[in-house]
Amino acid sequence: MITLTPLPDLPEIAPGDDLARLLTAAAASAGVTLERGVLVLCQKIVSKAEGRLVALADVEPSELAREIASEHEKDPRHIEIVLRETKRIVRRAHGVLICETQHGFVCANAGVDLSNAPGPDVAVLLPTDPDGSARALLDDLGQLGARELAVVVTDTFGRPWREGLVDVAIGSAGLAPIDDQRGGADRSGRELAVTAMATPDQLAAAAGLLMVKASGIAAVFVGGYTPEGDGTLSELVRDSATDLFR
Amino acid sequence: MITLTPLPDLPEIAPGDDLARLLTAAAASAGVTLERGVLVLCQKIVSKAEGRLVALADVEPSELAREIASEHEKDPRHIEIVLRETKRIVRRAHGVLICETQHGFVCANAGVDLSNAPGPDVAVLLPTDPDGSARALLDDLGQLGARELAVVVTDTFGRPWREGLVDVAIGSAGLAPIDDQRGGADRSGRELAVTAMATPDQLAAAAGLLMVKASGIAAVFVGGYTPEGDGTLSELVRDSATDLFR
Repeated sequence: MITLTPLPDLPEIAPGDDLARLLTAAAASAGVTLERGVLVLCQKIVSKAEGRLVALADVEPSELAREIASEHEKDPRHIEIVLRETKRIVRRAHGVLICETQHGFVCANAGVDLSNAPGPDVAVLLPTDPDGSARALLDDLGQLGARELAVVVTDTFGRPWREGLVDVAIGSAGLAPIDDQRGGADRSGRELAVTAMATPDQLAAAAGLLMVKASGIAAVFVGGYTPEGDGTLSELVRDSATDLFR
Repeated sequence: MITLTPLPDLPEIAPGDDLARLLTAAAASAGVTLERGVLVLCQKIVSKAEGRLVALADVEPSELAREIASEHEKDPRHIEIVLRETKRIVRRAHGVLICETQHGFVCANAGVDLSNAPGPDVAVLLPTDPDGSARALLDDLGQLGARELAVVVTDTFGRPWREGLVDVAIGSAGLAPIDDQRGGADRSGRELAVTAMATPDQLAAAAGLLMVKASGIAAVFVGGYTPEGDGTLSELVRDSATDLFR
């Protein structure tokens, strides 16, 4: 059995906060031991701890940002921050700006968000290096006693062809990004052609069942699931040469 | 806390099998009461119970099927079945055939699969009406005593831009396909612009952590998660008019 336990007792996170210490305390308070499981964190708390915040008042929008903002009825300063985080605009229509981020993720507004920000005119950006954030946090948690643990950092993305959002992983440490069953056999002994599961994304979606934004739950412990392998989430970013949906 | 419990004691499913009875027995055997939760099922067992099986020996491939098969080094009879299930070929490159199914789902090979099939030369097709399958099963389970239950039928899909597969919902009954938080407020009181979560897909991915193909786990009970609302999974299929990735 796998268990998903919310860790509600996290304070509002501010730049410089010691996430490992706060998460260890929140886990203890929820009766959770950080062992043989995966700690799944909403990107917002990682970004806030790392100070990835921009006050709109400090932003001078470019001509392009003003043009897009007026088309989309958005704040041009918000769009300016989005463009700075963007490597490539993938689609721009129906008031939606789908961007490839500097990390290679494809999502709305390059992950720049104004909701659940510390103030009404502050944008929260994705961590610069979410895999590095996950790794550093995992190391710190290990120092505080965590064992056989992995860390997954998540954000909420839309998808082509499907309405609605799902939580996906944007950074991870302590587990293989792909549970590669290729070359294995199914129950009838037939070779499995391609069953390479994106485990961090499955973990992100599972934890997302509890991370409803209004609840303020930003951390979930997935118990009964001992992480296997290692690697970085960035390995899940598809190479442009094999990408059919550039 | 949410719990994910595998139901391992399901026999190999054959056409005409009474899934509700078999699942109720498997749940009892796993110590699970089918109440206040979601029963997540791999599409394969639904398709097999409904007889959505085609023996390759019975298939005469068309010219197009032969042409694609030779390019992709596949069995032309397999490709012929894929084309019959396909409304539109979305992409065809690198040996991959991305199809829009008759239901409107976009996935590899229109969901036609040769692995975990009852025999080496049998293809398993997606259910004709997965929402209808879920609804009928939920009704039957209710007759056998299930309460406050939802049913989600899943398959394993790839994604654009990301390596690896995730489990997604292709049919559902007894819960809202979108948990619509639009118009709500975040913790700071700021209105949440768009946070419409595709709950059945999050449930599918969560259960998918246990549905590793070689394990043969085809049913998972998600406990501690009382389903809300109602509707059909087909509501998640994006209208072509607002789809940026046709």
